[in-house]
Amino acid sequence: MNFLFLDALNCRNKGRIPIWLMRQAGRYMPEYRALREKHLFLQMCHEPELINEVTQLPVRSFGMDAAILFSDILLIPEALGVGLHFNDSVGPVIERPLASSSDIASLPRIQAREDLSYIAKGIRLLKGCLKVPLIGFAGGPFTLASYMIEGKTDRTLRKTKQWMLRDPASFHHLLSLLCECIIGCLEMQIEAGIDAAQIFDSWAGTLAWPQFHEFSLGYLQKIVQRLKTRCPVILFCKGASAFTQELASIHPGAISFDWNANLPALRRVLPANIAFQGNLDPDILHASKSVICGEAARLLNGLRGDPGYIFNLGHGIHPDTPVDSVRALVEYVKEFS
Amino acid sequence: MNFLFLDALNCRNKGRIPIWLMRQAGRYMPEYRALREKHLFLQMCHEPELINEVTQLPVRSFGMDAAILFSDILLIPEALGVGLHFNDSVGPVIERPLASSSDIASLPRIQAREDLSYIAKGIRLLKGCLKVPLIGFAGGPFTLASYMIEGKTDRTLRKTKQWMLRDPASFHHLLSLLCECIIGCLEMQIEAGIDAAQIFDSWAGTLAWPQFHEFSLGYLQKIVQRLKTRCPVILFCKGASAFTQELASIHPGAISFDWNANLPALRRVLPANIAFQGNLDPDILHASKSVICGEAARLLNGLRGDPGYIFNLGHGIHPDTPVDSVRALVEYVKEFS
Repeated sequence: MNFLFLDALNCRNKGRIPIWLMRQAGRYMPEYRALREKHLFLQMCHEPELINEVTQLPVRSFGMDAAILFSDILLIPEALGVGLHFNDSVGPVIERPLASSSDIASLPRIQAREDLSYIAKGIRLLKGCLKVPLIGFAGGPFTLASYMIEGKTDRTLRKTKQWMLRDPASFHHLLSLLCECIIGCLEMQIEAGIDAAQIFDSWAGTLAWPQFHEFSLGYLQKIVQRLKTRCPVILFCKGASAFTQELASIHPGAISFDWNANLPALRRVLPANIAFQGNLDPDILHASKSVICGEAARLLNGLRGDPGYIFNLGHGIHPDTPVDSVRALVEYVKEFS
Repeated sequence: MNFLFLDALNCRNKGRIPIWLMRQAGRYMPEYRALREKHLFLQMCHEPELINEVTQLPVRSFGMDAAILFSDILLIPEALGVGLHFNDSVGPVIERPLASSSDIASLPRIQAREDLSYIAKGIRLLKGCLKVPLIGFAGGPFTLASYMIEGKTDRTLRKTKQWMLRDPASFHHLLSLLCECIIGCLEMQIEAGIDAAQIFDSWAGTLAWPQFHEFSLGYLQKIVQRLKTRCPVILFCKGASAFTQELASIHPGAISFDWNANLPALRRVLPANIAFQGNLDPDILHASKSVICGEAARLLNGLRGDPGYIFNLGHGIHPDTPVDSVRALVEYVKEFS
């Protein structure tokens, strides 16, 4: 077993800096595309054998120091019955977006252990084979609520924000309900064997500071408090570098930063017992190998010897990323340290 | 003359907190829409009489404490001959986007005083009528370069970032050339009578920290240094709250913050001689009047008595904002202090 990632997550890594990449099992890999030709995306998320196979692809191909479960944050909304499909051009589509507080009231109660049991089965298969730690994950309550209201990716989140401001009580009701589903889903993942959990509250960075506090942070805190004694929790928000102090205040195991952040400077203001992860701009992977290694070196030099640093991107890998660039990056990071 | 805005910009305001709103002369106003029915957007930017008329609309309707010149950041690219039109559904379109370093080399040298003289004429007309200070503006070099390369609004800036990483020398050449045009345009505006200048480097917040430093900040610094003895300069980047220390390090007159920022907390880390502006989320203006006033009160209470604070939004007003909400906000802010 390779313990570099878990040691870094516990801020006591004395070896080289570990690396994994958000969305490391994805369309940029030819092996992934070959599987996608045979299966729909959701089918790949639903079948334990495929979860197992896809999750392992980047670990085998590139020697990543951690695996992240192949899954999707929208499986919880799917289990809540709002209808989900993936459209190759527009991304995820919620077929029956929430439009009123009565839509929220009529959402069913779900039990992750029953309704999302295929995830636990995938994790158990993985734990029988993997030689690196396995990261489970879930979306944050605000992000899941946004998808369920917008129905599709809309960066402005106009409907969501208008609902939130017009009727905060029903919006909080939705967030509370989702928060319990997320905790249930992650508890199931922990029992099945994940070694760490990452919360993707990807859309929370679109919120103004007071609303981030009220509609995202409080729920993230609840999740961290309920899980942290059983498993380290990593928080990721796009835009988190603007909310560093707030995220640190709820004491997660780690914060995963987007590419805006000046990580060596942020390290100096983060409490020493919080690990941190990031933050190469995924666009850098479209540049030449010398630029990729140069930018990686800038990060690695700035954080050399830090016992709590995990190398990653600032966001998920783009589907059109050259696979050789990923290989070059991973090799460079592993040899550097 | 109302001096509240200029006093705040000089960090010595002892009166009430001044207010103006980004894109305050815009489609949300019925008077503006009536003019747009008779004129194309670019025609309105090109004709001094229309510049004068449109700029004054929100000052007359709402009693704003400052006017911002009605103009567009893309008039410099237009003068550089890349072709510009505005499409109501997709926004601005550059007809001949830059595709190679030879496209950059063949851009003409322009003289703002000749090629953009209609802007100066509009300013001179305004200075004969306005009873509040007039803010001139220009786009930042990185933002103008992005539009000229992408050809249209594309939040990912993939082409721009790939060019920047693949061929930084030609990208710097473009930035330097734009920087000189921007300085020329703002010097012309200063000579015509503007009281302050705002730089909109709206897209720079999409950059990773090292690239923000290299491809945005250095040029902003050059602009600030060249102009600051003649006129206070306000810097605005979407995402600026992640780059507060960097923006403060080049000593602008003021920083205009997007809505992510916790302004009262940022105030404590900003040097006392830098003014600051912002940062109500423009989405708040779609909420009820009690929410609008409540959120405004939160900001005003947090910054009460600060001699360098200017109330504004965190971004431009949305075109579908209810005009009564804008009126209610301005009245509330003016009565609060």
